[in-house]
Amino acid sequence: MAVGWFYLSVLALCSLGSICILSTIYWMRYWHGGFAWDGSILMFNWHPVLMVTSMVVLYSAASLVYRLPQSWVGPRLPWKSGHAAMHLLAFLLTVLGLHAVFEFHNHAKIPHLYSLHSWLGITTVFLFACQWFLGFSVFLLPWASMWLRSLLKPIHVFFGASILSLAIASVVSGINEKLFFSLKNGTKSYSNLPSEAVFANCAGMLVVVFGLLVLYILLASSWKRPEPGMQAEREALLRGGE
Amino acid sequence: MAVGWFYLSVLALCSLGSICILSTIYWMRYWHGGFAWDGSILMFNWHPVLMVTSMVVLYSAASLVYRLPQSWVGPRLPWKSGHAAMHLLAFLLTVLGLHAVFEFHNHAKIPHLYSLHSWLGITTVFLFACQWFLGFSVFLLPWASMWLRSLLKPIHVFFGASILSLAIASVVSGINEKLFFSLKNGTKSYSNLPSEAVFANCAGMLVVVFGLLVLYILLASSWKRPEPGMQAEREALLRGGE
Repeated sequence: MAVGWFYLSVLALCSLGSICILSTIYWMRYWHGGFAWDGSILMFNWHPVLMVTSMVVLYSAASLVYRLPQSWVGPRLPWKSGHAAMHLLAFLLTVLGLHAVFEFHNHAKIPHLYSLHSWLGITTVFLFACQWFLGFSVFLLPWASMWLRSLLKPIHVFFGASILSLAIASVVSGINEKLFFSLKNGTKSYSNLPSEAVFANCAGMLVVVFGLLVLYILLASSWKRPEPGMQAEREALLRGGE
Repeated sequence: MAVGWFYLSVLALCSLGSICILSTIYWMRYWHGGFAWDGSILMFNWHPVLMVTSMVVLYSAASLVYRLPQSWVGPRLPWKSGHAAMHLLAFLLTVLGLHAVFEFHNHAKIPHLYSLHSWLGITTVFLFACQWFLGFSVFLLPWASMWLRSLLKPIHVFFGASILSLAIASVVSGINEKLFFSLKNGTKSYSNLPSEAVFANCAGMLVVVFGLLVLYILLASSWKRPEPGMQAEREALLRGGE
């Protein structure tokens, strides 16, 4: 029963995550002319798509690896490696997303990193990089003692959830900022809620709902890998749900 | 030792919370002409001050009531009542903060609730209202069974932390939006990072740091009210720390 509920949540998450990415792509294609990699405004359009894909959806998928019941039994190393590899892929796409906006700013002679959105966003990416290196050094490489690992694990989990929260705050402020830019000179201003504004506001709210759902699954204790004493019980649960 | 660490964190939180409120007041007084309650732009200036005070600082203080070691021993009712009363005060100040921006919009003939900031903000306040009424009905009124309370408690705690996270995302997008408004027609645009922009960006980042610190204390298990079996141990800890 609990396992069925888990897989229903996974299905809901996959659908919602895909909708978040697809609606960002649609927003950029339908209202902003699509994509290019040439320093123009069409290069900027990669920025929201890559950031939502990497820092929200892929980051969430990588974080939730340990919530799959399959990861509770058997050796940990393959799951740890998968967790680290997916986060690395998310980080590489994040860097591409940042490169898209920096290149656009360079070509258009717009200063870098002035808005609060950019300050928060770059801080989030910096924390993500620190979190990845710390996680890789302490939890994946073999040198760290169990004592150090169990000391750092709650901090790793807390910062994992925090970075996702900060990414969502960055996305919300970024969509808000982009709409003020793109609708201020048009025939329809943001305050008249033209179709683009309604669409992008809804996309932003979906990202928020997705993030809350991920944080719930991440922090709800019943979906965590059980402590050794409870292992047998969970294995029975897992067999019952298959 | 743990208790000393806790009080150091409380001191840091109180200082940081006060700085968040004071810097929002300073921003509105020094760069935006101060405050009035007359539907003008000076009435709008109450909006950021009241929202940061209520939805971030007071809400956090009310949420952390159960993390005070004193609340772990003795009867729960006074602490529950204090928790509910402080959240009610936070909610009333939130309503005043919303009234300030709605009245300003009415006078200036600006449409209500069009930006993503406003959509997220009003959703956060709505969730806060639901959370308060559910909390009051289930945890403070005497009718609910222990079974219902223990079923709803993790949901109450999760939504408590989520509402704070959403409030912080709303504050970040709100500060970003306000700076684009107030600096677009000035002699210095936001992208040149005039002193107002640096100041308000820093204030926004401080709100984020404050929120993360609160969430850490709220979610770190070592500061939670211990389960009955661990009560004696914690009482000893409390006596040792006094």
